[in-house]
Amino acid sequence: MSSGPPFLFDDCTAVRPGPGDGEWNVDLSEQLTIMKDRPNGGYLLAVMGRAAVAALGEEDRHVVGATVSYISPPSTGPATVVTEVRRRGRTASQLRVALVQDEEPKVESLMTLAGLAGGSPDWGDVAPPDMPDEDTCRAAGRDLPSPVTGGAPPMAAVVEQSFDPATLGWARGAPSGEGEIRAWLRFADGRPFDPLGLLFAVDAVPPATFEVAMTGWVPTLSLTAYIRARPAPGPLRLRFRVGTIAAGFADETCEVWDSEDHLVAQSTQLAAIRFP
Amino acid sequence: MSSGPPFLFDDCTAVRPGPGDGEWNVDLSEQLTIMKDRPNGGYLLAVMGRAAVAALGEEDRHVVGATVSYISPPSTGPATVVTEVRRRGRTASQLRVALVQDEEPKVESLMTLAGLAGGSPDWGDVAPPDMPDEDTCRAAGRDLPSPVTGGAPPMAAVVEQSFDPATLGWARGAPSGEGEIRAWLRFADGRPFDPLGLLFAVDAVPPATFEVAMTGWVPTLSLTAYIRARPAPGPLRLRFRVGTIAAGFADETCEVWDSEDHLVAQSTQLAAIRFP
Repeated sequence: MSSGPPFLFDDCTAVRPGPGDGEWNVDLSEQLTIMKDRPNGGYLLAVMGRAAVAALGEEDRHVVGATVSYISPPSTGPATVVTEVRRRGRTASQLRVALVQDEEPKVESLMTLAGLAGGSPDWGDVAPPDMPDEDTCRAAGRDLPSPVTGGAPPMAAVVEQSFDPATLGWARGAPSGEGEIRAWLRFADGRPFDPLGLLFAVDAVPPATFEVAMTGWVPTLSLTAYIRARPAPGPLRLRFRVGTIAAGFADETCEVWDSEDHLVAQSTQLAAIRFP
Repeated sequence: MSSGPPFLFDDCTAVRPGPGDGEWNVDLSEQLTIMKDRPNGGYLLAVMGRAAVAALGEEDRHVVGATVSYISPPSTGPATVVTEVRRRGRTASQLRVALVQDEEPKVESLMTLAGLAGGSPDWGDVAPPDMPDEDTCRAAGRDLPSPVTGGAPPMAAVVEQSFDPATLGWARGAPSGEGEIRAWLRFADGRPFDPLGLLFAVDAVPPATFEVAMTGWVPTLSLTAYIRARPAPGPLRLRFRVGTIAAGFADETCEVWDSEDHLVAQSTQLAAIRFP
């Protein structure tokens, strides 16, 4: 996104060279929070991914794999992303990336950077879920306040999440029991999705566990994202599913399709949950 | 495994306090290699997990989540595992773990440690795959040399992999095209599986991509494992599946069930592949 209009997501994820080697100054925006002073996890991943791409400095290399450990929640405001290139390879390069605030590592990540293609995969295309069109989904969610925060999260002004009404039980206080949330996603200001935007997309919707049971917050401990292709222009479709809940932890997987029905990103996460 | 007979896997994964704070001396065994001087990835994960548990030093905390970046392949022989506790929490603790050899980080990991239960999960039990019994699978694989190495890998003497004959196309040079390998797993010396053994199990069988196409080696760049429950005694069943192959990368997921049909471990990995 080096030219064109100043999209909000690019402003919010901007990285500037910091004082030390491999250090990048960032400013975590209130606009991409899930509640006051609590930046969204996918947003943090995108900020760190952008610093990793800048640190590597190789054209056409994107984050294709990233794992983050969420150690303690960062606040909005200034932070530093510390990057260390671990390997520069012909096929892929690897970096260690940490988001530091108040001299404490808040989020740590291991990232793999490589080239990406668009279009069909070479093997194993996964069909997108059957779900109503975006307008139908948008209308279904319009007047439903979140039962967790009592209103839409601040980030809803930046990214439009249009939920499949069949997976909106949580918003009515009546989870479907299916453990799955499906949604359309687009940036409100028309910013197209690119590999960086996909890093944000894989952790941009409410926990899929909300469609199992209304619990308290479900903090992610670890998230792994794979970016598989450059997305075609247009909105994304997401399917976010709970696998198993056991011993206080839930695993959730997210799959993301572009407007041409190709799987473009995947994630899996382990979150702490008070259940049953 | 603090008492009882000296099982080989425990010898091979032994960690001893090293010279520096959080440093552990290990000796990577030739017995858990996939070919000469090339330790198996699940073995490295188990060694690092054992050091993490020792470094945390809290009773009944196991590795429940681990991501590893494979930076360059370590050799057999002495190595150091460097551990840093990042957070000690009531629910979970988090560590950064690196396997260092020749003063270079060869493998880096972020690990989450917590308590584990046994038995049924609280939600979302996943049924094991339908596959022949262990004896039938063991017999099917007995006289099939690996087409990659021309013989069984050294680790086959430590851990018995008994493959579902329907998923042994790769061993005959005729991949099924299904992209799935199913196997029974047990330690040859009768060592029971525990959370540490599960860390090994999630990356203990040949690449599932072998059931798509016979390519060259398929090096894992990043692997994420979740350990979900203490396994019941007896052999494990594994289902290892390719998701999508695109732009030179494949994602593969592994699910592991214990003898009581409960899902006890999961993994996902991103590997580089020359395909098509």
